[in-house]
Formats: sequence, C-alpha cells, structure tokens
Amino acid sequence: MNRKAIYPGTFDPMTYGHLDIIERASKLYDRVFIGVAHSTGKKPLFDVRERITMLKEATSHLDNIMVEDFQGLVVDYAREKDTRVIIRGLRMISDFEYEFQMALTNRKLSGDIETIFMMTRDSYSYLSSKLIKEAVSLGADVNKFVPENVAEKLKEKLKP
Amino acid sequence: MNRKAIYPGTFDPMTYGHLDIIERASKLYDRVFIGVAHSTGKKPLFDVRERITMLKEATSHLDNIMVEDFQGLVVDYAREKDTRVIIRGLRMISDFEYEFQMALTNRKLSGDIETIFMMTRDSYSYLSSKLIKEAVSLGADVNKFVPENVAEKLKEKLKP
Amino acid sequence: MNRKAIYPGTFDPMTYGHLDIIERASKLYDRVFIGVAHSTGKKPLFDVRERITMLKEATSHLDNIMVEDFQGLVVDYAREKDTRVIIRGLRMISDFEYEFQMALTNRKLSGDIETIFMMTRDSYSYLSSKLIKEAVSLGADVNKFVPENVAEKLKEKLKP
Amino acid sequence: MNRKAIYPGTFDPMTYGHLDIIERASKLYDRVFIGVAHSTGKKPLFDVRERITMLKEATSHLDNIMVEDFQGLVVDYAREKDTRVIIRGLRMISDFEYEFQMALTNRKLSGDIETIFMMTRDSYSYLSSKLIKEAVSLGADVNKFVPENVAEKLKEKLKP
Amino acid sequence: MNRKAIYPGTFDPMTYGHLDIIERASKLYDRVFIGVAHSTGKKPLFDVRERITMLKEATSHLDNIMVEDFQGLVVDYAREKDTRVIIRGLRMISDFEYEFQMALTNRKLSGDIETIFMMTRDSYSYLSSKLIKEAVSLGADVNKFVPENVAEKLKEKLKP
Amino acid sequence: MNRKAIYPGTFDPMTYGHLDIIERASKLYDRVFIGVAHSTGKKPLFDVRERITMLKEATSHLDNIMVEDFQGLVVDYAREKDTRVIIRGLRMISDFEYEFQMALTNRKLSGDIETIFMMTRDSYSYLSSKLIKEAVSLGADVNKFVPENVAEKLKEKLKP
Repeated sequence: MNRKAIYPGTFDPMTYGHLDIIERASKLYDRVFIGVAHSTGKKPLFDVRERITMLKEATSHLDNIMVEDFQGLVVDYAREKDTRVIIRGLRMISDFEYEFQMALTNRKLSGDIETIFMMTRDSYSYLSSKLIKEAVSLGADVNKFVPENVAEKLKEKLKP
Repeated sequence: MNRKAIYPGTFDPMTYGHLDIIERASKLYDRVFIGVAHSTGKKPLFDVRERITMLKEATSHLDNIMVEDFQGLVVDYAREKDTRVIIRGLRMISDFEYEFQMALTNRKLSGDIETIFMMTRDSYSYLSSKLIKEAVSLGADVNKFVPENVAEKLKEKLKP
Repeated sequence: MNRKAIYPGTFDPMTYGHLDIIERASKLYDRVFIGVAHSTGKKPLFDVRERITMLKEATSHLDNIMVEDFQGLVVDYAREKDTRVIIRGLRMISDFEYEFQMALTNRKLSGDIETIFMMTRDSYSYLSSKLIKEAVSLGADVNKFVPENVAEKLKEKLKP
Repeated sequence: MNRKAIYPGTFDPMTYGHLDIIERASKLYDRVFIGVAHSTGKKPLFDVRERITMLKEATSHLDNIMVEDFQGLVVDYAREKDTRVIIRGLRMISDFEYEFQMALTNRKLSGDIETIFMMTRDSYSYLSSKLIKEAVSLGADVNKFVPENVAEKLKEKLKP
Repeated sequence: MNRKAIYPGTFDPMTYGHLDIIERASKLYDRVFIGVAHSTGKKPLFDVRERITMLKEATSHLDNIMVEDFQGLVVDYAREKDTRVIIRGLRMISDFEYEFQMALTNRKLSGDIETIFMMTRDSYSYLSSKLIKEAVSLGADVNKFVPENVAEKLKEKLKP
Repeated sequence: MNRKAIYPGTFDPMTYGHLDIIERASKLYDRVFIGVAHSTGKKPLFDVRERITMLKEATSHLDNIMVEDFQGLVVDYAREKDTRVIIRGLRMISDFEYEFQMALTNRKLSGDIETIFMMTRDSYSYLSSKLIKEAVSLGADVNKFVPENVAEKLKEKLKP
C-alpha cells in the first residue's frame, strides 16, 4: 500500500491556500513531496530556488514534507517518487475544469496514477497567486494571503 | 497514520461509475467501508438490503471492501469507523458545487475529517442513477451502465 | 443523407424560446417532428393534448413542422421517424450539463443518433416553463414570454 | 433618489449567511424591508410567523430593518414599498444561474426594477437552509450555521 | 448614508454593455464615478485619454456621471472618492468567478467596501471588448455592439 | 434546403476530438468544409499549410470533407461557401461560454447563420491542443490523443 504522495505545482509564490492543502496532506500520508515545477510556459516571477526556499520556510514545522524541484511530466515525477498519488487543491469551478482535463490526461499517460483532490479552507478558497501579485503591484498589503516572508519578497519584486 | 476510508452514498442503485471509484479507492487504502445511507429524503427505489446486496455482488473480487448501511451524519460514521477520510466521486460541475457544500459543512461539523475527491473514468463520467432509472422505465437496455444483476433488478421494478 | 430531425420535449407549456428553436430548425431541415413527451415523472400542468394544441397553433405558419406525442425513449422515437438527428436548445450552464448527460446516454443507447444543439435568441435565453408557471400563479402577466393563447390557458389554470 | 430596498426570500429558516447580507445592506440603504414569502411551492418547515419571529430576533440590533411577509410577485412587493431595488445574496454558480433567470424575468415584468447582488462572507458562502435542515435531521449541532434560537427551533422540529 | 459609487474598469473600449450598467447605476446613486484603470498588465489598444473621451461622449446625457482615470487599488480609489460601493457588471459564469475572487480579495484588503453586482440587459450579456476587437480586426461592422464613435475609432486602429 | 456546413477552427494541431466531430458531421451533411483559420492572435505552432496537410491526411477516408484555409470572419466564410451552418464541438463548460458568446456575436453579425453544436465522444471530451502541446514539450507520448503523423510532427517541433 502506497503511503507517499506528491503535490506538484508552480507555487509562484505559495499562498496560505497552498499551505492549508500541505498541512492537510501531511496528516493523510506518511510523506508528501512538494514538487516545484520548472515552468515551461511564461516566465515565473520567482525562480525555482526562491520558490523552494519560501515553501521550506513555511513548512519547516512539518516533519514529513519534502520540498524539491522537478522537470518533465507530473506522472513521471510520481513514478520516480514511487507513488501513485498526485494531490491537487480545488477552489473554484474554473480550477475544476482545468484540473479535470489534467487528471484525465495524466491517467491516459499513466493508467495507475490517481489524482486526489482536496479542498482548501473556505476563507482561502478565493486566493490566487496571480491576483496576489497584481494586488502587490498596485500597492496592496497582502499579509492576510501569504506568510510574512513571502509578502516581503513580493514587495521587493513588485513594489509600484 | 490512517489507512482506512469510507465511501458513503445512496447507491440507488450502484452504477459502473460507483464501481470504478471503489476499485480505485481499494488500491489507495487498506480498507474501504462503503456506507449505504438510509435515505432520509425521498423514498429510494431499492431498500437498503437490496442496495447492499447489489454492491456486495459487484465488489466480491475486492478483498478490502466492506459494504454496510449507516444512519446519521457522515462525519459520525467516519468517526465510528475510526477514519478521517471520506471518499467522494466527482463527475460534473453540478456535482462539484453540491459536494463542495457538503465537504465544507462536514468540515465545520467535524474539523479533523477530510473529504477526498476522485474522478471516475471518462466514459462513466455522465452516468447518473437517476437518468438510468428513467431510461429503464422508458424501455432502455442499460447493460452498458450497470452490472447485469443490477440491470435485471431495475427491469423487474421499472419495466414499462 | 438525412433531411429530417426530431425536437423532443415536455413543452409544459411551450414558450417563445421553444418557438425560436422550432423556427430555426425549420430552416435547416426538410421536416421537423416536435415530439411531445408523455411525462413519466411528475404530473405536468397541461395534458398531452393541450400541449400539442398550443404548439400546433403557434407553428401553424411553418409548413414542415409536425407536432405529435411520443412515448418511450427519445432514441426509439428518432428511429421510428427514420432520422438520426435530435435537436435540443441550449440556454444556460445548468441546461448544458443535463443535456450533455442526456446526449451521451442516448449515444450509448443508440450509437448512430446525433444530438444537435442550437441556441435560442439572447432575449429568450432565460425563459423557463417552470419560472413562467410560478410567475402566473403569483399574478404576473406573461405575454412577453409565451404566445397569447398560452398566456390565457396559463391564467385559467393558475390564476391566484 | 431611492434610499430603500427590499430583501425578499423564503428564510426557512434564516442562516448566518442571510444575516450577513442583511447587515451589509443595512449600511448601504436608509431602510431595508425583509420580505418573507408565503411559499407557493412545497410546504416550508416553519410557517410565516415563525420565520418572521426568528428574523426579528436576529436583526433586533439593526434600526433600519423591517421584517414582514409578502404575497404575490417580488416586483409588485418592491413597487408597494416604493423602491426599485431588490437585494439578493450570491453564493455559488448554481445560485447565480437561478438568480440570473429571476432577475431577467423580473426586469421584463417591471422594467424599472433593479436586482442588486451582494456577496456573503466567504465562510458563509456554502451555507444552505436545505443542507442545514438535513444535517439537523441526522443529529448535527448547527450552532455554527444559525443563531442559537434558530438552532433550538430546528432541533424541536427535526430531532431524529 | 453613502450616495456615491464607483464603477471601475479598463473599458478598452467601452461597449453598449458598459453603457447599460452606467445608465442603471445613474438611477440608483446620486453620483457615479467611472474609474478608468491604467492597465498594469498587457498594453491596452486605446490609451487612458482615448478611453475616457469615448466614455464621456457616450455618457454626456447623464448628469451624475463623472469619468476619470485612477491608479492603484480599486479599494483605495473607493476610499479616495469617499464611498464604500464598487459597482460591477455580471454577464456570464466566467465573469462570476473572477468577480467573486476580486470582490473577496477587495473585502479582505478593506473590510468596509462592498461590491455590488448589476446585470446587463440580456441582449448585451454576451458582449466582450476582446471579442469585439477581434471581430473588427477580421473586418466586421460592430455598430450593434458599440456606439458609432467607438466603432469608428476601432476601425481606424484595427482595420484589416 | 442547405446541405453544406463549415467547421472552422485553428486546429493547431488537430486532435482525435476534432476528427470525431468531422466524422459525425460528414454523416449529417452532403459536404463539410473544414476552414483552417489564419490565426490573428498569437502565433500558432504549425503554419496553415502544415495544419491543412495534417487534416487532409487524417480525413482522406471521408469523401465529402474539404480542407482549406480561410481569412476574415467566420460568417463571411460561411456565406462564401453558400451555407448557413457553422459546426462547433462542445466539450466542457468553459468551451460552452466562449462558444455561446461567439455564436451570439456571429448571429448579430449575420442573422441567417446558425451555429450547430455537436458533442465529441466522451473519451475525447477532455482533449485540448494546448494541453497536448504542453505534454509533448515535457516528454509525453501523445499517440492516444492525436493521429501518428501529428504525434511525430509535434515531437519534431517540441521535443524537450
């Protein structure tokens, strides 16, 4: 029986919503690998090292969480970690459709992989890294949405 | 670490979509309890005993599946089974909203319970017990949607 | 090549939205059969004869439209009419999901049948027989939503 | 300029989600009339008097809120109160479509009436009177969802 | 009691859908400030001055409408105008989710600000500045979607 | 009566989902013109010639299918082909809204044009050219999603 899971994403940057999913997952699995993707599409605001550092700082209180980068397909990353479980957070309908497509595509690519969806806490359900970046670039204080160290790094990069 | 899960529902009657979720869940958990709810709302077509029998027949090839009835709140049933994991299948948007409401309500009722969503196989994603009953009552052959024994019991009850 | 189509529904009662779809369909097919379903579920407000009469009155200006009742599965009705085309109107998201389920179920029941979706005029896209009946029962004048003869029959049945 | 608004609904029973909308509305308008509808459809759990009493108790700290029953169309109720503003709460997608239909139907029935949508607090966005009644009938404690007096009345009526 | 409201947006360019919301809002508030955002993201087709001019021309018949640009957060703009009311138009589901996120984010940034949603006329509900620009660049005549002066300016910029 | 239809799109590249729609359409119309759009927006991965070649190879078994490029508005292309029928495939909700907007805009641009929606086979309903390109660029084998020649051309262009 498989006791490990991966939680892949871009985390550009991590929010309290991501952290909420991580904390929930850490209680359901012996070991959770947070896989930070090298973005192939548009350039992220933070490079992989920075994104990993922020996640490590925010999850230092959790023993069974490993933060690392990965390249290539999520299903290959799962196989490499010897797990069949991919964790994803669900927030809204638009998430749902995209995640649905991804999960079915991944299942077709690798039939024994399962995507497991968990829900963020209600008060985090509207958080989006993109919206947070926009808000900071317009002068907002985002301490309610991200940990303090992330808020500071966002300000450094995006201060208007 | 919790190795058990419950998969609650009405199963009136079970479909290949339910069976697909059960088979996937049986690979992710040591033991899965299928909880057949005594419906409090509108009268089901099959009584609890019939629904349990159909599920038992369809899952007899799976060692770690237990089928049983339950009464009361799903979160209380989870606690009784000493697990914090509720499994639910997701098919479509309308499911999603209802399930979202249920999951958040359950979390509020019992903070340590997690609802875990899994996706049915694409070709089962549109199956609905309600639609299948409607189809049978209009004369349809539903062997592609439910196991043979269920199809037969449906015909007995609903033949036009 | 098939030049006929069916447009099945409950039409309890017909609205300007239905009429809009019928007029559009009459231009795309040589012959369109409007199939009025004997409801198997909850009792309709108007019986089949009344619903057929209202549709016939409203479509009397269209040469290639036939209004009739049907029983049983929609796919069997299509076959009986020697067509492979089922026409359905799409208004909103919630329609969409239900129609999607229906179309896929019908395709599974009879692989050579196609469901073809058309869109109602924007100003009719929110019309619903159910809402109109509710409005009449509360005293509303619904001449903007249904033809005059339908509005009158609604008043007779539902006047508060 | 119009300083009054109505907030119509069934409120069977009121929840903290309703109360949240009422408190927000009370800050935006000089006077808000909460219109409790005599349900024309299925029988409500609480009669109009009970529903009004619960709302009055919960809103007694708000000076500019009037709770009363109404019959007939919402647009007629608005006109009777000499306002053109109908307030509705939005929680989820499924709400949205129904409310959209209602708002457009009301506008057609009475062109000078505007429906104004407000959003409930995130942690109340999943609350539904229906789900709460279901939960109580299964033995749940719903103090987190409704005021204490409402929770008690629910228990009296629905205790399993 | 607050009698002012802001209606912020990019308006690149304004459509009859925007104008419809503006006319409705002008009847509900003593004064409405149309805030034209300096886009921080991708470059708009029209610069702020052009967008303001088009809006001023289209709203010249409305006494209580002020068109102006703004920079920074919408909630700060609201505060600057001494109002707590942000008006937004709702057209479709995809709008709804984005607007929901924005409204909840704004409320978190500034707890006393309310976002008020109004619905455009049904026949404008599908209008989108983006689609209109696309259509013009392919040779379409868009006089049904935007005022004449806007249609002309679009042709100047985008004629194929 | 019109026996021709157009099926316009970008097809960058075509997938088994597109092919499924084409095969269905070829049974419902005497002649179907697949119109490959010169993209006005972002640069496609394959140029128009390449996209046409892939479609021609994949549809060579269908007598009544013509593949060609087109420029300008879809409604003008329809008129040029002397048809009033535009075929579009529907997969998911997000499709639906965009297609709805497009269909209503096209109808406004040219009142006699009808958009006809068909549904792809369930197992193709999640296919997206964009996701497939992403998957190939990460090293995936996409033979289950596109014909072999397309898979090969994708590998040539995107091999990681």
